[in-house]
Amino acid sequence: MASTFFTQTSLPSKSFNNSLNTHFIPSFKLPVSLSFTPRASVLKRLSVRAGLIEPDGGRLVDLRVAEWERELKKKEAASLPKVKLSKIDVQWVHVLSEGWASPLTGFMRESEFLQTLHFNCLRLDDGSFVNMSVPIVLAIDDSQKERIGESNSVALFDPDDNLIAILTDIDIYKHPKEERIARTWGTTAPGLPYVDQTITNAGNWLIGGDLKVIEPIKYHDGLDRFRLSPAELREEFERRNADAVFAFQLRNPVHNGHALLMTDTRRRLLEMGYKNPILLLHPLGGYTKADDVPLSWRMKQHEKVLEDGVLDPETTVVSIFPSPMHYAGPTEVQWHAKARINAGANFYIVGRDPAGMGHPVEKRDLYDADHGKKVLSMAPGLERLNILPFKVAAYDKTQGKMAFFDPSRAQDFLFISGTKMRTLAKNKENPPDGFMCPGGWKVLVDYYDSLTPSDSGRIAEAVPA
Amino acid sequence: MASTFFTQTSLPSKSFNNSLNTHFIPSFKLPVSLSFTPRASVLKRLSVRAGLIEPDGGRLVDLRVAEWERELKKKEAASLPKVKLSKIDVQWVHVLSEGWASPLTGFMRESEFLQTLHFNCLRLDDGSFVNMSVPIVLAIDDSQKERIGESNSVALFDPDDNLIAILTDIDIYKHPKEERIARTWGTTAPGLPYVDQTITNAGNWLIGGDLKVIEPIKYHDGLDRFRLSPAELREEFERRNADAVFAFQLRNPVHNGHALLMTDTRRRLLEMGYKNPILLLHPLGGYTKADDVPLSWRMKQHEKVLEDGVLDPETTVVSIFPSPMHYAGPTEVQWHAKARINAGANFYIVGRDPAGMGHPVEKRDLYDADHGKKVLSMAPGLERLNILPFKVAAYDKTQGKMAFFDPSRAQDFLFISGTKMRTLAKNKENPPDGFMCPGGWKVLVDYYDSLTPSDSGRIAEAVPA
Repeated sequence: MASTFFTQTSLPSKSFNNSLNTHFIPSFKLPVSLSFTPRASVLKRLSVRAGLIEPDGGRLVDLRVAEWERELKKKEAASLPKVKLSKIDVQWVHVLSEGWASPLTGFMRESEFLQTLHFNCLRLDDGSFVNMSVPIVLAIDDSQKERIGESNSVALFDPDDNLIAILTDIDIYKHPKEERIARTWGTTAPGLPYVDQTITNAGNWLIGGDLKVIEPIKYHDGLDRFRLSPAELREEFERRNADAVFAFQLRNPVHNGHALLMTDTRRRLLEMGYKNPILLLHPLGGYTKADDVPLSWRMKQHEKVLEDGVLDPETTVVSIFPSPMHYAGPTEVQWHAKARINAGANFYIVGRDPAGMGHPVEKRDLYDADHGKKVLSMAPGLERLNILPFKVAAYDKTQGKMAFFDPSRAQDFLFISGTKMRTLAKNKENPPDGFMCPGGWKVLVDYYDSLTPSDSGRIAEAVPA
Repeated sequence: MASTFFTQTSLPSKSFNNSLNTHFIPSFKLPVSLSFTPRASVLKRLSVRAGLIEPDGGRLVDLRVAEWERELKKKEAASLPKVKLSKIDVQWVHVLSEGWASPLTGFMRESEFLQTLHFNCLRLDDGSFVNMSVPIVLAIDDSQKERIGESNSVALFDPDDNLIAILTDIDIYKHPKEERIARTWGTTAPGLPYVDQTITNAGNWLIGGDLKVIEPIKYHDGLDRFRLSPAELREEFERRNADAVFAFQLRNPVHNGHALLMTDTRRRLLEMGYKNPILLLHPLGGYTKADDVPLSWRMKQHEKVLEDGVLDPETTVVSIFPSPMHYAGPTEVQWHAKARINAGANFYIVGRDPAGMGHPVEKRDLYDADHGKKVLSMAPGLERLNILPFKVAAYDKTQGKMAFFDPSRAQDFLFISGTKMRTLAKNKENPPDGFMCPGGWKVLVDYYDSLTPSDSGRIAEAVPA
């Protein structure tokens, strides 16, 4: 249920070029909106600066080849065995290429995979640990393995047969599916969305190696301009002279309880003595399960919510986090947090049951609602990150608005779960006034309206968010 | 398949009192055999010395109350809510009480349980990590929880209703059985022996806290004298002026391949420059699955093997490791290694598929045979331990004895698995000459002979060792 507001900014660019404004949504009628193509050399120079938290491993990884190398790499790829990627594989290439998983330099080799499964962290050469809780792996089947033979590199192609990357110094090892699922999700029950999507029918082998990504990954869905890399985010935080960055992961529509939380967090950080805490509002943009609201509709909903101006545009940065969603609760929330360190955040807001969902076959939540924040606060490699567990907001019937829950007058509060919210929107009913701005609510209603009856039928079976 | 020889010693005591000789089996007609009752004060004084590896957390935990406190604690216990322990729970009290799990001071509280499940290690106050891969937890059911109510302590009783210990500053939390099983074993398939025995029908709550153990745990099975605590083992290694201690975990009968390995390891350590490497031969003495050879028969088998004198008594210490067996492969082997650090070992020998078994429902091994040693070599908190992966020994038909496998003449070698060995013994057939000494083999044959037909029927279904 981690989700929040999304806002625009009107703060003019101070020192860097205007192209950095592209993460503000142009359709909000902002003064500046230019397209921006990252250039590896610029990004590297700017990626680490005094003031922001250091990326894991000390250096932000950038796996995109320089422009001058592209033709060379394309030629090289032509002679290599070919591996076809799924859409989700491409999202992981994107994640890896921009250094969200720094210091990983490509799909995991077996030693990284085993450390992730057993320890949720990787040991570096200097003996220190970085957190790494979800396996970022690439599966191949027996025939692909045979075609690769003794080759030391392979070329990776997207589902439309476009060359994406080269994987070098490869390591092919067994894909222990059951063990991977059990250790990542803490269950092997059938019906885990990411498992059904990417593991059950995947090949029996995993292939790791170093990635050389030919061109920055783009989706051409009208949202690419919101997909800022960790280096670009760091630049923006620098530009704003942030002395604290607090990140909020979201994959749901945003209601007024989240706004309350955001403003309250900033207030607390100012009380702690920070002069300019910046909020990173960071909706997840990769694979989500069928009954989640799709990214494009979420962005529309966020846009409408933003028009209310509930959050301060000068202290808010909005961007899309390109990772696919595992729904692996306490294991996954570590990944969500770790990736935000690499993007420059030193505070991470964590809610009830982060990255959780209903148990796929039993009538209960899959994870204990408190385990996520507990595990996050104890996780090796996340010591440098300040964890901010969030207070529960609910609808206060006496005030007619979202407020922090006060257990001494519990009867005054109404809890509106993600499931409840979706059911209301599907049935074109309205939530209580003050729960969400009307424009944002209408987007939700429109979304469910747009679904064919068979789709809505499937969504009626939704597990709790 | 970790198993090895067991040997006697005739080395006279040099500096400490003769009672330390009790870990040499008296029935071998050794010159000295006195009973020994550990006294906490003596043990604490001797437990950590220059030269031996430090225990985890710097201090060997001893949770047995001093003799003068016993009556006091018994009186205290009389007023506390009562929790009845299973036999396996008592084995864990034993393990905890002597500091095998140092720095744990009792059954795990939730924060330790979660760190174990997710990270296989615990963070200490100074920020360093110790390894801790299997949950050492105590389950209680709803009615027990209700009886405990608001009490801060409980009294623990063994299955015969004898007071065993007090658990103080308790923490009661949910027992997430499915998640515990999935994250510990990497599967939730039905038929995992330890799960069937201790988790499936256990209560829905776990209770952690600090243990005060009233009296040293004894089993009165004629083998207590072989159950040396980590402190007693450390004393013995000191007495022998060990400059390296190499531990070998075993839960199977011992054959001549193991002897070869032991002597070869010692030879390698001498080559590395150590002057006096001591072998800790350490059969596991707690719960094992039904088709494993029971401890008492294994000890008899070891005794016969020892009469051959294949290993040097002056450089070998034999003792029983009181832990129950999880059969959790790469997860459990870390526990086996970590516990031996606490007993003073700085080298750990690891074989193929340590702590592994066949998959309970699929026709394959549960774990990749190489994962155990790989995970062990990467495990947080085990950095100080030197891992010695062992070479594969097999029966060399050209020499008529066990020898290190030479792949260039694979056809000369015969692999005799644990299952094969047991099948031969059950059918009163002999293995090839030179596989195991005849006296040791006869013990195995006698053991299977002693089983009732229904028992042997069950054992014929055995999974591979």
